[in-house]
Amino acid sequence: MSEAVETLEGWWVLHDFRRVDWPRWHAASAAQRAALLSGWQTLCRELSGGPLEQAGDSAVYTVLGHKADLLFLHFRPRLEDLLAAQMAVNLDPGRPFLVPATSYVSVIELSGYLAKPGTGPLPPEVQRRLYPAIPPHRYVCFYPMNKRRQGADNWYMLSREERARLMAGHGQIGRRYAGQVVQIITGSQGLDDWEWGVTLFADDPLVFKKLVYEMRFDETSARYAEFGSFLVGTRLEPDDWPRWLNTATGDG
Amino acid sequence: MSEAVETLEGWWVLHDFRRVDWPRWHAASAAQRAALLSGWQTLCRELSGGPLEQAGDSAVYTVLGHKADLLFLHFRPRLEDLLAAQMAVNLDPGRPFLVPATSYVSVIELSGYLAKPGTGPLPPEVQRRLYPAIPPHRYVCFYPMNKRRQGADNWYMLSREERARLMAGHGQIGRRYAGQVVQIITGSQGLDDWEWGVTLFADDPLVFKKLVYEMRFDETSARYAEFGSFLVGTRLEPDDWPRWLNTATGDG
Amino acid sequence: MSEAVETLEGWWVLHDFRRVDWPRWHAASAAQRAALLSGWQTLCRELSGGPLEQAGDSAVYTVLGHKADLLFLHFRPRLEDLLAAQMAVNLDPGRPFLVPATSYVSVIELSGYLAKPGTGPLPPEVQRRLYPAIPPHRYVCFYPMNKRRQGADNWYMLSREERARLMAGHGQIGRRYAGQVVQIITGSQGLDDWEWGVTLFADDPLVFKKLVYEMRFDETSARYAEFGSFLVGTRLEPDDWPRWLNTATGDG
Amino acid sequence: MSEAVETLEGWWVLHDFRRVDWPRWHAASAAQRAALLSGWQTLCRELSGGPLEQAGDSAVYTVLGHKADLLFLHFRPRLEDLLAAQMAVNLDPGRPFLVPATSYVSVIELSGYLAKPGTGPLPPEVQRRLYPAIPPHRYVCFYPMNKRRQGADNWYMLSREERARLMAGHGQIGRRYAGQVVQIITGSQGLDDWEWGVTLFADDPLVFKKLVYEMRFDETSARYAEFGSFLVGTRLEPDDWPRWLNTATGDG
Amino acid sequence: MSEAVETLEGWWVLHDFRRVDWPRWHAASAAQRAALLSGWQTLCRELSGGPLEQAGDSAVYTVLGHKADLLFLHFRPRLEDLLAAQMAVNLDPGRPFLVPATSYVSVIELSGYLAKPGTGPLPPEVQRRLYPAIPPHRYVCFYPMNKRRQGADNWYMLSREERARLMAGHGQIGRRYAGQVVQIITGSQGLDDWEWGVTLFADDPLVFKKLVYEMRFDETSARYAEFGSFLVGTRLEPDDWPRWLNTATGDG
Repeated sequence: MSEAVETLEGWWVLHDFRRVDWPRWHAASAAQRAALLSGWQTLCRELSGGPLEQAGDSAVYTVLGHKADLLFLHFRPRLEDLLAAQMAVNLDPGRPFLVPATSYVSVIELSGYLAKPGTGPLPPEVQRRLYPAIPPHRYVCFYPMNKRRQGADNWYMLSREERARLMAGHGQIGRRYAGQVVQIITGSQGLDDWEWGVTLFADDPLVFKKLVYEMRFDETSARYAEFGSFLVGTRLEPDDWPRWLNTATGDG
Repeated sequence: MSEAVETLEGWWVLHDFRRVDWPRWHAASAAQRAALLSGWQTLCRELSGGPLEQAGDSAVYTVLGHKADLLFLHFRPRLEDLLAAQMAVNLDPGRPFLVPATSYVSVIELSGYLAKPGTGPLPPEVQRRLYPAIPPHRYVCFYPMNKRRQGADNWYMLSREERARLMAGHGQIGRRYAGQVVQIITGSQGLDDWEWGVTLFADDPLVFKKLVYEMRFDETSARYAEFGSFLVGTRLEPDDWPRWLNTATGDG
Repeated sequence: MSEAVETLEGWWVLHDFRRVDWPRWHAASAAQRAALLSGWQTLCRELSGGPLEQAGDSAVYTVLGHKADLLFLHFRPRLEDLLAAQMAVNLDPGRPFLVPATSYVSVIELSGYLAKPGTGPLPPEVQRRLYPAIPPHRYVCFYPMNKRRQGADNWYMLSREERARLMAGHGQIGRRYAGQVVQIITGSQGLDDWEWGVTLFADDPLVFKKLVYEMRFDETSARYAEFGSFLVGTRLEPDDWPRWLNTATGDG
Repeated sequence: MSEAVETLEGWWVLHDFRRVDWPRWHAASAAQRAALLSGWQTLCRELSGGPLEQAGDSAVYTVLGHKADLLFLHFRPRLEDLLAAQMAVNLDPGRPFLVPATSYVSVIELSGYLAKPGTGPLPPEVQRRLYPAIPPHRYVCFYPMNKRRQGADNWYMLSREERARLMAGHGQIGRRYAGQVVQIITGSQGLDDWEWGVTLFADDPLVFKKLVYEMRFDETSARYAEFGSFLVGTRLEPDDWPRWLNTATGDG
Repeated sequence: MSEAVETLEGWWVLHDFRRVDWPRWHAASAAQRAALLSGWQTLCRELSGGPLEQAGDSAVYTVLGHKADLLFLHFRPRLEDLLAAQMAVNLDPGRPFLVPATSYVSVIELSGYLAKPGTGPLPPEVQRRLYPAIPPHRYVCFYPMNKRRQGADNWYMLSREERARLMAGHGQIGRRYAGQVVQIITGSQGLDDWEWGVTLFADDPLVFKKLVYEMRFDETSARYAEFGSFLVGTRLEPDDWPRWLNTATGDG
């Protein structure tokens, strides 16, 4: 048996992607649209720093392409808090306009490849990485991934040493992008359909392409990584909603 | 020909995942919602310990993410009883609000790898494992799986001894989580699209991640397991429905 | 080139799986439901032994899980007769309530692995297997399958002798279940998305699991079989419809 | 680099599969149905030999199973003509009743494996194969396919001689079915999701099964062919529509 | 670790494929259709050379087959500009008639296999390739692709020299089609589900088939390429909309 690596876990994370029901939106009156818009702004404020967020953080992004129009991203202390955040959207009067597109359930994970978790209290820099605020960058990129278990390319049959060596090289690429991109790794074994989620935050979306492409040449990705769908978007602050929907009113 | 392992079977099991038709819910009047809510509470009570459950057990869970909103889980003596439980939901006046999302048909299975089924009456501890009540834990995790038959990684071409050896090591990991998680294995060869279903019950959902991740390093999973979709949720007792739907009335 | 095996063909077969449009059903009045129910009972009687069945047989089953609610199974002399049976359902006034879920087009096939088809008239026992009535058993199981063509596991590159040897071992398992299960093999090369359909009939649905599981350890399945979706259900006679839909009226 | 084979191309081909919106049909009045029926008959006549067909041919088939109800098959000189034929259906008042199910875009292809295309004018028999009328047979079968590029089974890494040898053996099987089946091969590299479409025409649909099954034992298929969905149907002449829809009126 | 190749990036690109909601179109009055048509023509003019296009280019194509009816293709300086172009369609009153079918997010990419990007200003011919207008050709073809990472066929484990050699041979085929086809390669690592998009423009659509087929015999494609869906269409200028929809009015 190969030796499992220990992990540390922090916030629970829900990526809740939604589509707008545009025919319904176009059928709404101006007054209905204003009420919807105002409601969504209030909802977003309550989810991030308001009564629907006792701890953790939430942010909303507009998503490019047909896969989704919006991403509601939630960091929370407990799985129930994610359910509560999701239900806050479902019970909002604007819910009929927001159709679930896809989602991802995971938990922030620090891997023990570089340093085995000790038994004492966690150092503050580890605490900050386990319980971060959502990075403020303008662009977001999300994708899920697996480590491959296929014929001779079976990550889970490698020795712990070999895996640590590969991960170290992999991490070196990531560090070259420090300052340009913030990467949050979330584990989802037993929670969702892939083994990990990767969420990237940057002020220049070209960095997503550069980083992902360069990493693909690294043996860790080249031989052992399998990727799901990639989604990219831009931050949508509550004040941005009227401009996004081209609707004059709202509480902004 | 490889020697097949004998199995014991107990309750028939249906995982009936449903989505709420939220636009329909938002279009309902307060009176309609109260009636729906009351009806669902009654239905759940009749399915678990009431007239719709002559034997076996039923429980309802809220599910996180877009894949489903609710899981109706049924343990029953006969396949027809599962059909009856499913039809009880379909014929309930609240059915138009509950859209089938996915489902899984299986039967509780004890594998004969560790001890060949004998011919005498089953010992009480085996009876209890074949015909359990649904564990009372707050969190549930479900996923289906196959044993791989791919090139050199073909479980069904291994000798019985080799399979027993691998399963024994696999079981050791599981036992380290005894007290933290209850695992119910259900067989679905000939019944549904994967070979087994795994349903985990725990009071801390992080245990699902820890257990599944650790097991993936075991050769039984690393080389021979293929996994379907993972779904997680929390128990929804009849009394919890009003709070879940933020609706004041109901029979609670 | 590997030597193809000759086959004998009998009835054409359509597995026509349908979902009930439950919101539409719940919106119907009691009078509409009674008329629908009566119409479905008449349709089923006409399809099996009535004017819509000049030869062959039809039967209806309720299906467990989200994949379908009903299976209309038709055995007919010609492909056009299957089209006519399908159109009889489509043109029935109850059609808006019955949504196509999935289907399978195939033809009953006897394989020549064990005995090459001769040139004389077919013996009566072969005739009976090519042109059977639908077995009367209470439970049905359907799944499609392929023989694998993947790397070293390529069924169609084996010699005829090797294939005959494998099929003979495979058949021995099946014969151990004689009396417990009736198996009808239908070929669908050139007709539908898999190479064969397997339809099992039994009075105890656990036999489906036992048989499929045991066969998976046989090299024919372990190395060479690929399986599609499995669906199970129970026979629904015309007189059973009122109870199934919990509707008092009907022509029963 | 392997040597590419040259090809000759003829008619552009669209397989336009449609489902009938049966709930809409059942909701239509008798007068509406008569108008729809008459319109479809006119449309079909205009598409085949009428003003919507300057050159080429069109035919309609009823399709068995849930994948589609109808196939509109068009042979045309230019890709734009296929767009025009598709738009003729879309702009027809009966379009709301005909929902796109699937489709295939390709062009009739003669492969140069057996004889390299020369530089002179094409012989008449080649012209006839590139620009045929739709064969008049009662039954149709369509499926798309690829040549495999997988590990040791990579068609495109074979030498031209090896490919020609394999194709010659493959063609011998096809020729044994001459007189029973007409096969039209269409290329779709760069046009649709598979590399080729195969459309078979016969007066006995069992021939589709016999031919496809026998070819699967040929190394060209056994090692190198990957198949998509198979669809079968029967010719629906304009005069057949009233009987097909069990509607007395119409222009027939 | 294999050496990553450097790349240059230009316009951001969105392929926004839409289906027409034909039942809605047929239900619209003549006046509504005229207004819709006029609105779409205005929208298209604003997106290409008008106020919705500060820089870059846009074009619309009709698409053949069931996968989409229209392609809105946008080249823009920034990812936000793509979001704005997509939202211009979503907020247009004609949006309920245009249903998202699929989409692709990528950025024009010049690969450094043939010449490593230097540090000085880009030569004008490189600038033109990074920031092109949409080629004016009548036909378009789009497909996404990956480089394979499968067993012995793993592109990303090849040396930079081997990859450069393979790409050079691959490019020679493309150059034989110079003058017949314009090819724009867009990178989508980290942006969408495949690694690259390929968009071809030509005045004869048969060139798409010839080029893609010939390239498949090249080792770069034969061993290392995986392809997604192929979509083809023809340019739809604003003035072409009335004829396309067979609607007399409009602003044309």
